[in-house]
Amino acid sequence: MTVARPDEVRRFNRSSLLRLLHTGGPATRAALATALGLNRSTIKMLVDGLTEDGVVEEKVPRMARGAGRPSLLVLPQPQAAVVLAVDVQVEHAGIALVGFGGQILGRNSWNLRGRQREPDEVITHVAESAAMLAQDLGLRPVAAGVCVPGVVRRADGLVHTAANLCWGEVALGQRLRTVLDLPVVVGNDAEFGALAEHVRGAGRGAADAVFVSADVGVGGGLIAQGALLRGSAGYLGEIGHMTVRPGGRICHCGNEGCWETEVGEAALCRALGMPEHGPRGAIVAELLELHGDWETHLREYLDWLTLGLVNVVNILGPELVVLGDLFTALPDGAVARVGEQVRRRSMVSRALGGVRIEKSRLGADLKLLGAAEAAFEGVLAML
Amino acid sequence: MTVARPDEVRRFNRSSLLRLLHTGGPATRAALATALGLNRSTIKMLVDGLTEDGVVEEKVPRMARGAGRPSLLVLPQPQAAVVLAVDVQVEHAGIALVGFGGQILGRNSWNLRGRQREPDEVITHVAESAAMLAQDLGLRPVAAGVCVPGVVRRADGLVHTAANLCWGEVALGQRLRTVLDLPVVVGNDAEFGALAEHVRGAGRGAADAVFVSADVGVGGGLIAQGALLRGSAGYLGEIGHMTVRPGGRICHCGNEGCWETEVGEAALCRALGMPEHGPRGAIVAELLELHGDWETHLREYLDWLTLGLVNVVNILGPELVVLGDLFTALPDGAVARVGEQVRRRSMVSRALGGVRIEKSRLGADLKLLGAAEAAFEGVLAML
Repeated sequence: MTVARPDEVRRFNRSSLLRLLHTGGPATRAALATALGLNRSTIKMLVDGLTEDGVVEEKVPRMARGAGRPSLLVLPQPQAAVVLAVDVQVEHAGIALVGFGGQILGRNSWNLRGRQREPDEVITHVAESAAMLAQDLGLRPVAAGVCVPGVVRRADGLVHTAANLCWGEVALGQRLRTVLDLPVVVGNDAEFGALAEHVRGAGRGAADAVFVSADVGVGGGLIAQGALLRGSAGYLGEIGHMTVRPGGRICHCGNEGCWETEVGEAALCRALGMPEHGPRGAIVAELLELHGDWETHLREYLDWLTLGLVNVVNILGPELVVLGDLFTALPDGAVARVGEQVRRRSMVSRALGGVRIEKSRLGADLKLLGAAEAAFEGVLAML
Repeated sequence: MTVARPDEVRRFNRSSLLRLLHTGGPATRAALATALGLNRSTIKMLVDGLTEDGVVEEKVPRMARGAGRPSLLVLPQPQAAVVLAVDVQVEHAGIALVGFGGQILGRNSWNLRGRQREPDEVITHVAESAAMLAQDLGLRPVAAGVCVPGVVRRADGLVHTAANLCWGEVALGQRLRTVLDLPVVVGNDAEFGALAEHVRGAGRGAADAVFVSADVGVGGGLIAQGALLRGSAGYLGEIGHMTVRPGGRICHCGNEGCWETEVGEAALCRALGMPEHGPRGAIVAELLELHGDWETHLREYLDWLTLGLVNVVNILGPELVVLGDLFTALPDGAVARVGEQVRRRSMVSRALGGVRIEKSRLGADLKLLGAAEAAFEGVLAML
């Protein structure tokens, strides 16, 4: 414990300002001063420093109202800090370069089938694709965030298991650090989805929120008191492997009746009378064609979705649950019905005056954006 | 944001030292200096200040080893700060005065039957009993911590519902603040149990732990990254109302097949072939008499216990689960068997290399100690 020196105070203020611009986007000096509780001369000094370093640009706002000199608009410069975001899914992988402020500056994606899904192939392809993208755009990332649908140790990025990719004990963090020559943070995909919702999506301003997503598997990420929860050693949120149906189908995790086996992609296909491993587009198209018929086809599926959400809300007491991925293709009426039932059946929701249950609106980029945010966590403090 | 001034640094160091003495007990000046990363002259100054204020006493340790002057032993003085702890259970209520360092200085308890269980009666009895205890001991509490088996809003201590007490919307915090004329913090009993385990029990040193307890109902408290989790508005941890058996018994919460209905007191009585609302002592005696027969009688009961624990571990990824209350009366062999099965069936436990599942060893005082710790949170900083 030492006394905070003036340069430490300045660094703290600069870093708060950077975070605000990164998550909130362009703002006037006056708005920044209010948001940070700093006086205008301190803001001026900080912004001048950032302008000199090329991190922000200042402009006179186009629609200056009233008399007097308008407050200058401070714009984050995306190229001031660029990170590599990598989203490894079961059927495909995607990468993007994301700039300061959260804008995707360029991207690439490819399918994963057969041998392409093996760790060696994925790592090589990520490295090559990232190098090409960086060259094309003339940008150099300073860190990388990577998400996979698996059980990940946050400390070093070891993928303990990613069953739907058939991966076990892959030192993904360490290997990518070597080939990319960058700091790399690896996380579970639902966890990073939760981070994206918290920073840029439906979860902004919600201190306690749960993000639940269905892809091939079902996963979750938890925001508690404004921060992403991490279990012991960073293992957390295998919400999809909560037992909801004792004596039910055997799950790949070795247990039976997991929530994932009742509300994951395969379960949705069964509810729709489709083959279990059809392409994602066909499932979404089938859901769109249900129109008013969803009540007949999805009744049992929605009952299991409701049951799991009642549990999640009772255990974690969030004010908001965001449904991602395949869940976003469910009819709005179906999601509204699930919400009503969860609010009625969960005693914690009743105490809270009603938990909100919403679909993610960040679209297919959700996990890329989350991976980028995980990478930015270490970057903004250094900028 | 201002620069930390020397007196702020001193206050911060003093408060860290107080917390260390409160949770760790007597220690030499040398050990305190090491634990806090402070030099010996700073420790001397701080301890001298605390001695002057009567918060600690210094003694020459009885077994001073080696040559040279022995490091003085610093002893927390219990009467330097006393809090009132209140534990309202379904069948009885208890109060205690707890001193700085966590020692119970005196206590009182009474049964709750019929009208005695009504909020008015409980509040009056707590106030009278606390006044008598304080007078007998010649002590004056400076804050109170109160736990109830219910859904509690932490911000103001509103008990939204405590079904097993038949309470609904009781402004317990506000009413006790008025009659006791003290700052009062109210929480769920399992939540405060978790706090006690974290500060003084099996959870010491475990950054991520879950505490699950069975009384009439089943509840849980969650420690994540070293702190007690609170859901939105402080509603959290209704782990007992996770559905484990769809289509199962109707629970008082309005849902069906809750974990509480399968592993709570009534379920244990059914498993033992006893009437459902017998006295606690009879249940414990019956469990003790099982000896090797527990496998036959408790098989199904333990299966439900295992199933719920697999879920808790998969969702929250703790390194440790502490079983409290009625669970502590289960045969050691039964708990060991449950632990083995949870470690085998939970994928997160496998990733972690095996979650530990242990009985609480804090005994019947667990929740009183937790309520005291909740009260001390606001007190230590002011001492």
